[in-house]
Amino acid sequence: MSFALELATRINRLADGPLPEEAFQIVKGSLLDTLGVALAGAHEPAARIPARVLDIGSQSGPCVIYGSQERASALDAALINGAAAHALDFDDCSTTMGGHPSVPVLPALIALGEEIEADGASLLRAYIAGIETETRLARGLLPCHYEKGWHPTATLGVFGAAAACGRMLRLDDEALARALAIAVSLSSGVKANFGTAAKPLHAGLAARNGLYAARLAKSGFSASADAFEQVQGFFNLFNGEGLYDADAMLADWGGTLETLEPGIAIKQHPCCGSAHSAIDAALKLRQAHGPFALADIAAIETETHVRRLAHTNRTEIKNGLDAKFSVQYLTCRALADGQIRLAHFENGAYAEAAILDLMSRCTARAHSNDDQYLGTVVVTLRNGRVLTEQASTPFGRGPDNPMSRGELTEKFLDCSSRALERDKAEALAESIWRMEQTKNIRDVTTMLASGPLQ
Amino acid sequence: MSFALELATRINRLADGPLPEEAFQIVKGSLLDTLGVALAGAHEPAARIPARVLDIGSQSGPCVIYGSQERASALDAALINGAAAHALDFDDCSTTMGGHPSVPVLPALIALGEEIEADGASLLRAYIAGIETETRLARGLLPCHYEKGWHPTATLGVFGAAAACGRMLRLDDEALARALAIAVSLSSGVKANFGTAAKPLHAGLAARNGLYAARLAKSGFSASADAFEQVQGFFNLFNGEGLYDADAMLADWGGTLETLEPGIAIKQHPCCGSAHSAIDAALKLRQAHGPFALADIAAIETETHVRRLAHTNRTEIKNGLDAKFSVQYLTCRALADGQIRLAHFENGAYAEAAILDLMSRCTARAHSNDDQYLGTVVVTLRNGRVLTEQASTPFGRGPDNPMSRGELTEKFLDCSSRALERDKAEALAESIWRMEQTKNIRDVTTMLASGPLQ
Repeated sequence: MSFALELATRINRLADGPLPEEAFQIVKGSLLDTLGVALAGAHEPAARIPARVLDIGSQSGPCVIYGSQERASALDAALINGAAAHALDFDDCSTTMGGHPSVPVLPALIALGEEIEADGASLLRAYIAGIETETRLARGLLPCHYEKGWHPTATLGVFGAAAACGRMLRLDDEALARALAIAVSLSSGVKANFGTAAKPLHAGLAARNGLYAARLAKSGFSASADAFEQVQGFFNLFNGEGLYDADAMLADWGGTLETLEPGIAIKQHPCCGSAHSAIDAALKLRQAHGPFALADIAAIETETHVRRLAHTNRTEIKNGLDAKFSVQYLTCRALADGQIRLAHFENGAYAEAAILDLMSRCTARAHSNDDQYLGTVVVTLRNGRVLTEQASTPFGRGPDNPMSRGELTEKFLDCSSRALERDKAEALAESIWRMEQTKNIRDVTTMLASGPLQ
Repeated sequence: MSFALELATRINRLADGPLPEEAFQIVKGSLLDTLGVALAGAHEPAARIPARVLDIGSQSGPCVIYGSQERASALDAALINGAAAHALDFDDCSTTMGGHPSVPVLPALIALGEEIEADGASLLRAYIAGIETETRLARGLLPCHYEKGWHPTATLGVFGAAAACGRMLRLDDEALARALAIAVSLSSGVKANFGTAAKPLHAGLAARNGLYAARLAKSGFSASADAFEQVQGFFNLFNGEGLYDADAMLADWGGTLETLEPGIAIKQHPCCGSAHSAIDAALKLRQAHGPFALADIAAIETETHVRRLAHTNRTEIKNGLDAKFSVQYLTCRALADGQIRLAHFENGAYAEAAILDLMSRCTARAHSNDDQYLGTVVVTLRNGRVLTEQASTPFGRGPDNPMSRGELTEKFLDCSSRALERDKAEALAESIWRMEQTKNIRDVTTMLASGPLQ
C-alpha cells in the first residue's frame, strides 16, 4: 500500500471514529483564537494586497472575507483569510510542527464549509483530522525539514488543509490519498522570506492549495500513488535520503491526539514565541513587586535559551516587525505596561523615549538550562533591591498551563476589536463556543463580515 | 547587490534594448505553436477538471479560456490555459531548461495582456525576456535540479512568468527583483507526479503564480532581497550547497539569446521527445523506400541513446499515455502511417491488431554514440532486403533543422481543429504571424474563443 493511501486510511478512520470530548473543547478555543487574530490582521497589507491583486472586488461567492463586506469564492477566501490570520504572527503554534497548525487548515475548511453549508460538528472533526495530518507528517520530517529552510506551516500545512477539506468532502480512502499526492505538487514556501509579507501569504496559499487539491481529487484528477515515497518523491526531495522517518508518521494513529498532547499552543503575546518566557517572567515580577517607577530601575537582565536568544537578541530596533523579535524591547515593555499588545508594534511605539531609556539598562543573556521554555528576569532597583522571577511553559502554550475559556475570549475580543463592534464580537464568540450545535456554519461566519472600524 | 536585483536589472536591460529581428520571428512561431497545442488540449481532463473546480462558470473576467465560450480573470485564465497547453505534452521544449519554456510564460502573459490591452510587440518582448530568465537560471541549476526530482517547467518556469509579466507591468528593477523573490515562495512541482494530470497542472500553476508574484510586487508586497542566495534560500534549498552556479546565470546577458541558440524546439510529434529521432528515421525510411505492406516486414530494429531508451523501452502498452513513451510503438506507427498524430494515442489506437503484430517483430536497443539525438531504424524485408535510415537533431528542434512557417502553420491547423473551425484557425494563424503590428492583443485572443467542435 502506498504511503499516501496508508495515511488516507488513517485520516478517515480517525475522523469517522469516536473523538474525545476534550479535543472538541480545545479546538473550539483554537478556532476562536484563529478567527480573532484573522480579524485583527484583516486590514494588514500582508492580507489586503493579496486580496486586491486577486480582483475579488469584481467577483462574488458564498464566502466571507473576514472583517469586510466582501465575499469571494472558497479558494480566494481561503487565501485571503489565511494570510490575514497569519499577518500578525499571533496565531496558534505546534511544537511538533515547528509552525502554526490552524492557519493553513481553518480558513480553507471554513470557506469550504460555507460553500457546502456544513454543520459545525463536521467542521470540528475535519479540523482535528487536518491538524493530526500535518503534525504526524512533521514527526517524521522535523527537525531536518525546518533546518533546511522549508516553512512547515506552508509545506506541511498544505497536507493538513487537503486532509481536512477532503474529509469534509467525504472523499473515500483512494480519493483522499490522491488529494494528498496532488498536494505534493503544490507544496511550497521558504523560510528565506521570513520577516516579510510573504510569510503570511504562505499560510494563505497553503490553505488555498490544500482545498484545491481536495477538490481536484473529488473530481477524479490523477496523481502518482507513490508521490511521497518514490525515489524522487516528496520525502527525498524536501528532506533527503535517510533524513525522514515514514514509520513515525504512520505510527499510533488512534493513540493520543496531537490536539491534546503536546496540544495547540495559544499565543498570549503578539510577538515571537521565543521571547514569551521572558515576557511572562517580567509580568510575574511586575505583579509580585510592582508597579514601580521606571526611573527606579537600575538594571534589567533577561536569560532565555541559547537557541531562542539567537533570533531575539536585538538591541537596535528598526521597525515594528523587528520589535516583535527583540527580547530586550519585549521585556522592557512588559515591565513598563504590564502587557504586550498589538499597539506596541505600531505607529513607532518601539521608539518611545521611556522605553529606549529602559532598554539602555537591559542586557540579554543565554542560560545553560536544557529547558528551552525557561525565561528569567532580574531587576535591580536603584535602592539596591534585586528582584528575580522565572517562567517556563509559557501561559497558554499547552495542556500544563492552558488559557481558560474566559481568557481565550478576552484575547479574541481584544483582537476582533479592530474589525468588529463589541456586541457583535461577543455574539460571535458565544456561537463559536457552541459550534458543535451549529446546523449551518454560514449562521456563524456571517458574523465575521463587517465594514472596517478603523 | 542581491542576486534577484542583479537578475532584474539584466531582464529590464534586455527587454528595453534592441532585440534581433530573428528572435521575433522565432517567438511568433512558438507563440503559434503554444496556442495550437493549447487548443488541442483544451478539452482534456487535465485542463477541464482544474477549470471546473475553480468555479469559473460563476465568475467573469476579460480573459478567454481557449477553445471555449468562457471568460475568466487573468489569474484563472493563466492556470487553465497553461494546463491546456501542456495537457498533451506536445508543446515546445528547451534543452537548457530540461523542460518546456513557453507554457509557464505565455498563458500568463497573454491573460495579463488581455487585461491591460497590451500591444503585440510588448507581448513578444516580454515573452523573449521570460524565456531568457528561466533558461539562464537553468544554466546554473541543471542537471542537478532535474536529477533531484524538480520539474523545471514549473519550478523555474514560475520565474519566467514573473519576469515576463513584471516586464509587461513595467516594474522597475527593484520591483522586478521583489517579484522574483516572491516567486521563490511559490515555486513548486515534482517529477514524482509525471505521467499524471498533475504534470500539465504544474505548468498552469507556474503561469498563475508568476503572474501573481508580478502583481504583488507591483502593489508593494515585500519579500527578502536575498531570497535566492541566502543560506536557506532558493539555491541551497532546491539544489544544495555547491550544487549551483549563480555566475553562470548572470553571465552573458546581451550575448546570444536562448531563443536563438540553442533555440526553442518545436515538437513535430505528439509524444515523448526521446523517441523523436527514431520516428524521424522511420519516416525517412518509409519515404525513401516505401510505402510497403506491413506483412512484407520481417524485422524492425531501432537504436536510440541509452539515456533516452531508459524511459522509452516499452513493449507492452497499457494506455494512450504509455504509448507516447514507447519507442517500439512509435517506430511501428511511423512506418505504418507515415506520421504520428494525436489520434494514435486515443480510443485504443495503441491496441490495433496490425500495430501489435508489427511491434512483435520490433526490437529496441541503445547505441553507443555520444550523440543523444541520434536515432537509427533498420527494416529487414521478407525478401531479404535490409533498409537503414538515421536521423539526428530532430526536425523542428533547433536552428539547425527548423520547421518552416508553413510547417508550423500546418501543425497549428491540425492541433486547433479540435476546437476551432478551419477558417477561423487560418485567420488566427495569420494574425499571429503579424503579431508585432497588433495594437490590442484582445483583437487576436478573441479568435481563441469557441464552442467545442467535439
